[in-house]
This record gives sequence, C-alpha cells and structure tokens, in this order.
Amino acid sequence: MKKLINSPEDVVSEALRGMEAAHADLVRVNHDPKYLVRADAPVKGKTAIISGGGSGHEPMHGGFVGRGMLDGACPGEVFTSPTPDQMLDCTKAVDGGAGVLHIVKNYTGDVMNFELAADLARGEGIEVEAVVIDDDVAVKDSLYTAGRRGVGATVLAEKVCGAAAEEGRSLADVAQLCRDVNANARSMGMALTSCTVPAAGKPTFELGDDEMEIGIGIHGEPGRERKPAASASEVTAMLAEPVIEDLGLGSGESVLAFVNSMGGTPLIELYIVFNELKAILDARNITIGRHLIGPFITSLEMAGCSITLLRLNDEMTRLWDAPVHTAALRWGA
Amino acid sequence: MKKLINSPEDVVSEALRGMEAAHADLVRVNHDPKYLVRADAPVKGKTAIISGGGSGHEPMHGGFVGRGMLDGACPGEVFTSPTPDQMLDCTKAVDGGAGVLHIVKNYTGDVMNFELAADLARGEGIEVEAVVIDDDVAVKDSLYTAGRRGVGATVLAEKVCGAAAEEGRSLADVAQLCRDVNANARSMGMALTSCTVPAAGKPTFELGDDEMEIGIGIHGEPGRERKPAASASEVTAMLAEPVIEDLGLGSGESVLAFVNSMGGTPLIELYIVFNELKAILDARNITIGRHLIGPFITSLEMAGCSITLLRLNDEMTRLWDAPVHTAALRWGA
Repeated sequence: MKKLINSPEDVVSEALRGMEAAHADLVRVNHDPKYLVRADAPVKGKTAIISGGGSGHEPMHGGFVGRGMLDGACPGEVFTSPTPDQMLDCTKAVDGGAGVLHIVKNYTGDVMNFELAADLARGEGIEVEAVVIDDDVAVKDSLYTAGRRGVGATVLAEKVCGAAAEEGRSLADVAQLCRDVNANARSMGMALTSCTVPAAGKPTFELGDDEMEIGIGIHGEPGRERKPAASASEVTAMLAEPVIEDLGLGSGESVLAFVNSMGGTPLIELYIVFNELKAILDARNITIGRHLIGPFITSLEMAGCSITLLRLNDEMTRLWDAPVHTAALRWGA
Repeated sequence: MKKLINSPEDVVSEALRGMEAAHADLVRVNHDPKYLVRADAPVKGKTAIISGGGSGHEPMHGGFVGRGMLDGACPGEVFTSPTPDQMLDCTKAVDGGAGVLHIVKNYTGDVMNFELAADLARGEGIEVEAVVIDDDVAVKDSLYTAGRRGVGATVLAEKVCGAAAEEGRSLADVAQLCRDVNANARSMGMALTSCTVPAAGKPTFELGDDEMEIGIGIHGEPGRERKPAASASEVTAMLAEPVIEDLGLGSGESVLAFVNSMGGTPLIELYIVFNELKAILDARNITIGRHLIGPFITSLEMAGCSITLLRLNDEMTRLWDAPVHTAALRWGA
C-alpha cells in the first residue's frame, strides 16, 4: 500500500486537521467527537442541514460545509459509519431553532446511527427530519444496504436543499425538496481498479488487468457484473441507459448531468465520458440543463466513474444556481 | 492499459468536445487546429493571455480559460507540445488590440514552438510577449528541458496575471508581473506510481511496490532520487524544504501554499500533506496567506503530489482574490 499518509489510524483526524488549517474562514472543526460546522453556525432561524458517513469519499461531505450547502458534516473512519454521538453533537451545534435535516446515504450503519441521533436530539427539544438517499440503480440490496445504495444524488441534494434552507424555507419544506431530488435522481458507477482502505492495507477486491466492474458501490461493494474493460462509449452507455430507463426520462426533458470520478480517474477521461453522455442524451432529445464534472463522491484512489442524472424543473435549476461557498463547490460568492 | 477512452488517437479531441459540450458559456473551441478561447474573445482593449502545452495535465490549461484568467489555451497531444499554428491562430483569436502574453512552461518543444508562433504573430502586427515559467527545483536540466522545468507556478501565474489583465493593465505590466510570480515561486513533486500515455499503452516508467520518485516531472521525467516510500510527514519535508530554501523564505513572510495532486492521489491525502506543510511553515514562522488544494496540474492518473510555494505581497494577494470564472477555478463570480 503506497499512500501519502502517516499511520492508517490517523488518516481521518489528520485530514480533518488539514481541512481546519486550510478552511478556517468556512468551517469550525470539532475533534472529539469529530464533526465540522460552518464557521457561523448556528445560523439563527435557519433550517440547518447536516450529513455524514464514512471517510474516503472526499470532498463529500466536509468539503460541502459552508454557506448555501451543509451546516455540518460528520466524518466516520474510512468507509465506516460515524457514531451517533458525532451526529448528535453536530445536530446541536448547527440548530438555530428552526430544526435540522439529516441527509443520510442509504447504508445500514449510517441509517441506524442517524436514527438514534435524531431520537436523542428530539429528546433534547430539537426538531429533526431525516431523508434517506437511495439513488444507485445498480443493485437492489447490497453488502451494506437494504434497498438501493445512496451515491451521487447526495451531492445534488445537499446543494439544492442547502440553497433552499439559505432562502429561509422551513424544515418540512427542505425535507420535502430533498425527497423530490432523491425521487428524480438516479446513478450508476463502475470501477477500473480497486481501492485500498488504509487500515486493511490491501485492495478491497481484485480486478484483473483487463476487467472492470459495472455497478460498483462507493466502498467497492460488488455491482451488477464483471466484464472485460470496454471503450468509454460502451461504458457510458452501460451506466447511462439503466439510469435513463429507471428515471423514465423522456424526450423534451432537462437534466443535471453529473459525471463523477471515483478518485483515481483523471479529468481528461471524465470529459470523454461527458462527451459520450451528451451524445446518448441528444439522441433521446434530453437536454443537459446543468452539469457537474469532477471528483465529488470518491472511493479513495479507485479508478472509475459514476453518472448521476437529476430531472430538473425550474425550481431545482434556480436552487442549483444559487450562490454556494464551500471548500469543494463554489460559485456566486 | 485501462482507461475511460475510446481510442488513444482520439483522447484529446474527444475530451475537447466534452469541454465544449459542458462549458459553452465559458469557452469557444476550435477543432482544427485545436485551441479554446473565452466565449467573449477577443476582448477589445484588454491584454490577452494564452498558454498551452501537452494534454494530460488537466484541468491545465483549458480549464483555466475564462474571465479573470486565460483568454485562450492550446492543447497538444498527450505530453506533446502543441504546434506553432495552434498558438498562432489562438493568439490571433484572442488579440483585442492590446497585445498577447504567452505563458510558456519551460520544456524545449513548448518554448521553441511558442517562439515561432510569437514571431509569426508579430509579423501580422500583433504585439506579443512571452514569459517562461521554470519553478521546479528538483533538477537543473531534464529530459525535455534546458534549465528548470515549469510546473505548479504556471497555475498561479495564470490566475494572478489573468486578474491584472482583467483590470486593464498593459501587456508590459502583465508580463512583468508574470516574471515576478515566477521569480517568487518554487515547486517540487513526487510520484508513488507511474502513469500511462494512451498512445504508448504501457507505464512511462517502472516504480517498485515500495518505491517513490522524489522530484518527478509532470511527464514522468526522472527526479532527484528514487527511495523507499515514506510517510506523509517525511515526503512533505522532502518537497517543502528544498522549495523553502531555494526561495530563501524567512520568518515573517507570507506564502500561497499550493498542494497539488498528480491525478491519482485523492483529496483526503492532500489534506494530510497540507497539514504537514502547515507544521513545517509554522515552525519557520512563515504564514500561509492563501492556499490551493486539489488536482490542478496533473500527470494523467499518476499517484503523487507536488508542493508549490509563492511568496505573497499585498498586490499578488489582491490579484489572487480577484473574481475568476473558469471551468476549474471559480470564485467571486
């Protein structure tokens, strides 16, 4: 295992110290238990939003904390759910009196721990709603999941809901919007290589020199099938078509097209995939109204990509365009 | 070789089509010869700035075309200099009557071709200045270079000079500023793995499972030494100390600290390196006034990182903070 780390057990805490050193203008970091909140938290009267999950998916979620997106984030150990006490303390730190939305990716540990944290927070008088994101069409159930896994739609939900909360919308409104984003977004990913969890010290799975895994999960969970490595054109079709079918996208619709690197795939390849995706959507008369291209929900250094499509309406488009100022996503500010 | 590409010979043109499909609001793309210009080029009366070089370093340079940074960029084939006709046509396309600055990374082919293009452009009545960036302290001469190689300082020069040009500064002023940035910036990089040029189909160099290359070039050119892989703390010191020494940075100074991924190294590791870099600079009473963390000048999927330090003054800090709107760097807009 070759990585730019010191010891496997310090990866998350040291990366968090790096975030703190770099982004003190945007975030405040709590080290025990670990969570980040926006620098001006709690924002009085604003619906707050937090998320969290295992580390190793950076910039998600810590890189999305800031004005117009998340109020807080709870990083677990690599590929390991954060604990309820992280979530509870983060919830308390961001609550400005208008309640807190928990955006939860659908993995058994995350869901269970966020449920417990929500119960505890409610016991302390904080209004909490939770929305579970489950956009991955690859598999029905998975290694760590009952039902579909939560992947790329999480990034989009955090941005869109963050903008709505910034506008002063109520917790109930923001939670409903989050459900709408989840209902209108689907994803699928693939891997060309495995990744290595620092504490494990060896690749999570083995993939032959000429193989790829279609439908991979963001922790390296098995996908739909292992196949010979194929062209960008073929791979893009294998990812985009199930997403389009499952969403029921039709002629004349507009989408946000999100082409994501799993971590080890460079930008030049993402643009080739985006070019293929554009051709597939053009052929179906589906417009790319907005896009996001880059490494935003990663799996350590895994090579591969995922595609997420979100059906846009005017409201979501406007909220996507609204100002955001975080370490990883920034515009209009 | 596993990559998300179709055929090796189409990598650059298809990635360029992807850029065009995604960023029509920011850039216009010319396909033969290949170059990108900002969507509103030429901007009448403004000093224009272009750069260019081999592809495979994305987002550099195409991702830096837009308001507040580059007016144009010329992508060569992967790790291959663009041709003089690309540079000439791009120069003509961006000239708004106030002349054009060529920001050239110090590689023999780039320097030679930009010189030829500048001569041809001057022959057509366009005022051209060229500044060669040579910030890499790793080696004196290199595989493709007489003198030091141009690396991370290029990104910083493009941002700072782009802001100055946007303010209406003259070609002579902007060129001088570019020389100032180059004179006050130094870099060094390292690799944990090789990368594979698509047309070659095999790794550019071999590196053992427990080896790293310190002082690597962005095309995989040999660096200072090959050593056993070390901790993030040791690696950061090996990169930062020669940079600090060569710059002659002293107590009380302020720098822009740029921690860059070579492509395959994920963000979580960059933050660990940033944390180490902060400790090294703190111990010398050097302040990190500004920072940039992420994959901005890459070497395809190579794992590794580079560190660039730029000595800041008030003027450079102000120009760094000025609004920028490109595919890869955006703030204040």
